[in-house]
Amino acid sequence: MIVPSAPLTSAIVAFAVRKGPLPASARHIMKLSLLDWCAVARAGVDEPVAQIVRSLVAEEGGRAEATVVGLAEKVPARAAALANGAASHALDYDDTHFAHIGHPSVGIIPAALAMAEKIGASGEAFLDAALIGVEASCRIGTWLGRGHYQHGFHQTATAGAFGAAGAAGRLLGLDEAQMAQAIGIVATRASGLKSQFGTMGKPYHAGMAASNGVEAALLAKAGFVSRPDGLECEQGFGPTHAGENADLAPILAGLGETFWFESVQHKFHACCHGTHAGIESLNALRIARGLVPNQITGVTVTTHPRWLKVCNLEKPATGLEAKFSFRLTAAMALASYDTGALSTYTDALCAEPLLVALRDRVRVETDTALADTAARVSVTLRNNETLSGEFDLDRPMPPAAREAKIRAKAASLLGSKPAEAFWGVVDALDRRPVTDLSRHLVG
Amino acid sequence: MIVPSAPLTSAIVAFAVRKGPLPASARHIMKLSLLDWCAVARAGVDEPVAQIVRSLVAEEGGRAEATVVGLAEKVPARAAALANGAASHALDYDDTHFAHIGHPSVGIIPAALAMAEKIGASGEAFLDAALIGVEASCRIGTWLGRGHYQHGFHQTATAGAFGAAGAAGRLLGLDEAQMAQAIGIVATRASGLKSQFGTMGKPYHAGMAASNGVEAALLAKAGFVSRPDGLECEQGFGPTHAGENADLAPILAGLGETFWFESVQHKFHACCHGTHAGIESLNALRIARGLVPNQITGVTVTTHPRWLKVCNLEKPATGLEAKFSFRLTAAMALASYDTGALSTYTDALCAEPLLVALRDRVRVETDTALADTAARVSVTLRNNETLSGEFDLDRPMPPAAREAKIRAKAASLLGSKPAEAFWGVVDALDRRPVTDLSRHLVG
Repeated sequence: MIVPSAPLTSAIVAFAVRKGPLPASARHIMKLSLLDWCAVARAGVDEPVAQIVRSLVAEEGGRAEATVVGLAEKVPARAAALANGAASHALDYDDTHFAHIGHPSVGIIPAALAMAEKIGASGEAFLDAALIGVEASCRIGTWLGRGHYQHGFHQTATAGAFGAAGAAGRLLGLDEAQMAQAIGIVATRASGLKSQFGTMGKPYHAGMAASNGVEAALLAKAGFVSRPDGLECEQGFGPTHAGENADLAPILAGLGETFWFESVQHKFHACCHGTHAGIESLNALRIARGLVPNQITGVTVTTHPRWLKVCNLEKPATGLEAKFSFRLTAAMALASYDTGALSTYTDALCAEPLLVALRDRVRVETDTALADTAARVSVTLRNNETLSGEFDLDRPMPPAAREAKIRAKAASLLGSKPAEAFWGVVDALDRRPVTDLSRHLVG
Repeated sequence: MIVPSAPLTSAIVAFAVRKGPLPASARHIMKLSLLDWCAVARAGVDEPVAQIVRSLVAEEGGRAEATVVGLAEKVPARAAALANGAASHALDYDDTHFAHIGHPSVGIIPAALAMAEKIGASGEAFLDAALIGVEASCRIGTWLGRGHYQHGFHQTATAGAFGAAGAAGRLLGLDEAQMAQAIGIVATRASGLKSQFGTMGKPYHAGMAASNGVEAALLAKAGFVSRPDGLECEQGFGPTHAGENADLAPILAGLGETFWFESVQHKFHACCHGTHAGIESLNALRIARGLVPNQITGVTVTTHPRWLKVCNLEKPATGLEAKFSFRLTAAMALASYDTGALSTYTDALCAEPLLVALRDRVRVETDTALADTAARVSVTLRNNETLSGEFDLDRPMPPAAREAKIRAKAASLLGSKPAEAFWGVVDALDRRPVTDLSRHLVG
C-alpha cells in the first residue's frame, strides 16, 4: 500500500502514475467527450457565468500558461482551469456519469488542458491524463455514493477535484508520494453544494474542481506536506462528507483495466438529463409509426421517482423551466421539435397552443424498478390503439453511432465546419501537441 | 430580512455594509491583532509552507494589486490572500477565539489587506473591514459550533471564509444584495478539515479562507448569482457541515454594538494554546515565591479533558512535540525558560536533564468544570508546603497591559526596532493609506 491504511488513495495513486498505453475503447470515448466538451464550452462562452469568471481571471492576468475559452490572452493554469470549468458547465449540456452522480469532463478536462499547456505536453499525454482523471473521478464519486449526494454535496465539484488533481499531477510528473500529497491537499480544499443548483454556483463547481486540482498538484510538486490519507482517514474527506464508504472491493475492481468512464452519457437533448430516456422512447415510437400530434389522445411517461424532484415542472413558463419538464419535453418529442438545439428552449415555446395541448395529455408515473437512466412510455391514439416503448440511456451504443451523434451535436452547436475542424484536431491529437487543440478554443 | 428566510445571512449582510464608526475598544483590539498578525507573518515567512505558497503565486505573477509578505513583487489580490494566510498561520502563533473555535485574524486580515491594496483604500477603511470580518467570523464560527468542529471541520477555514468575504466585500463597496451573493458564493467554496492538523494543511486553511473570501467578493461585484441564503438554507453550508444551528438569538445578540472579537486571545507562548493557562499559573507562582526547580517535588496541572487529545504528549522528543506537552511546558515555566521565543523549542530542549527531571514530577489531571481557557495548578515543595494557583486566559486584561504584552511579543519575534516601527504604522493607520502598512510587510 502506497499510503499506509489508505487503500483507496493507494489504488488511485498507483492508477494515476501508471505507465503504458490505455485501452483503445476508453481512449475513443475520451476523444468523443473531448469533442463534446469543446462544443459545449465554445457554445457556453457568452453565458453570464462564463463571462464573469473569465473577466475575473483576465483582470488578474499573469503568466501566459494556458488558454481560456474565448479569451485571446493566456493566463496561469490555475486560473484557466477555473474559467474553463465554469464555461463548459454553463449550459449544463456536457456529459454525465450516473454511477458517479456527476459530470466528469467539465471538472477534469479543464485541469488537464491547463496543466498540459503549462508544461508543453503532447496531445497524447494530455488525453491519457484526462482519461485517468475522469476515471478516478468516477470511482471516487461512486465511493462517496448517493449518501454524499443526498446529504447535499455535488460530486462534480467534490469527486471532480480529486480527479482533477490526478490528471494535473500526472502531467506534472508527480511520483507516488507526491501524488498522494496532491490527493491529500485536495481533500481539504474540495467543496460544492447541491443547494446551488439553478444558480451560477453549479457551473462554478466545475471550475472549482479543476482549479483545486491544479493547485493541489502544483503544491505537491513543490513539497507541500498534507495528510496523504486525507481522502479516507478518520475525519478525512469521505467520513466528514457523508461518504457511503462502501466496501472498497467493487469500487477498485478492474481499476486500470476496465474504464467505468466508457459508460458516460453524452447529452443529445439540451434539457435535464432526467428527461432524455423519455424523449428517446417517444422519438423512437414517433419515427417507427410516423406519428403526428393530432393522432394522440394520451401519453404516459414512467420514470424513477427520484426524478420527480428534479424535472417534473407541470406547466413550464420559461425556456429554462421547459428543460425541467417531463410533460413539455415529451410533447416536444412527439411534435418533432429539435430538442438538441439550444435555441428551441424559449419562453414562447412554452406557450405554443399545439404543444400546450399535447403537454396536457401527458401523465407522469413512477416505478422504483426503473433505472435512473431509463423510461417507459405509452401513447394512446385516437383509434384506441396503445403503443408502448422503453429506453435506457445505459444501453450500449456502438462506438461509431456514438461518434456520429456527438459530431452531429457539435455541428448543431457550432456549425458544421467548425465542428468538423474540432473533430479533426481531437481525432489526431495523440500525434500532435496539445497546443493544436488550445489554439482552436480561443477564437 | 434582506434575504427571505435567511435571518443569519440577513444580519451578517446588514452588519457588513453598515456605516458609521465602530467602538473604540474593538478598534484598539483590532490594531493589536494587526500588530500581532504582522509579527507572526513576518516571523513565519521562511517556514516551508509559507515559501511553497508564496512561490506558487510568485510564479503565476499577474497584476500588481497586493503585497505578499516577504515578496518584492505584488500579485493579484486573490493570490496575495492565499499566500499571506498560509504564511501568517505557519507558526501557529497567531490569535485564537475560543467560542469561535478558530483563529480569526489569519483568515480575515489577509483578505482585507489584499482587497484594500487592490482598491487603494484608506487605512481606516481597511481596519474597519478587518474588524467587521473577524467579528462575522466569530459569530458564524460560534453558530457552526462545537458540533461542526467535532465532526471534523476547521472553523478557521470555514467560518473564516465567510468573514473574509464580508471584509473583502465591504471594501469593494458591495450593496446588500451583492453582499448576500458573496456570502452565498463562499457557502459553496468554503472547506477545511481538522484531520490536516499537524501538516501544512492547517496554515493553508487560513490562506484558503482569505482567498475564497476575496474571490467571492469579486464575483458578487461582477453580478454572479448564487444562493444568497446558501449559508443556512436547506442543504446549505451549515446544515451540510454538521452546524449546530443553535438558536440564533444569542448568536445575533448585540451584533454591531458588542464585539465578541474583543475577547480574542493573543498567544504569548510559542506553543499550543491549551498549555497557556497552565504556564501562566505556574509563572505567577514562580515569580510570587521566587521558586527554583530544586525546591519542587511535585506539580499538578488540571485542565479541561478536551485538551488531553491535543497537548498531552508525556515525553516529547522534538521541538515541535514540546509545544504539545503539558508536562514539559510546565517544567519550562518553573525553570524560567522563555516560552515566548520560537528559538526555545528545540530537540535538545527535550533532553535537558534538569527539565526532564522536573517534567517527570508533573501530573496532568482533568476537571470538566474548568473552562477551555483555564487551568488550575498545585506545586509541592521540599518543605511539604503546597502552593496552588489558577489562571483563566479569558480573564479581562486591561487594554494597556495587553498592548504592552503584544508589543513585547512583536519585539521578541522581529527585534525591538522593527517591532516598534510596525506598531507606529499600525497605530497611525486610521489616518494613513493602507500602503503605509503593506510597504513594511515586504522587506
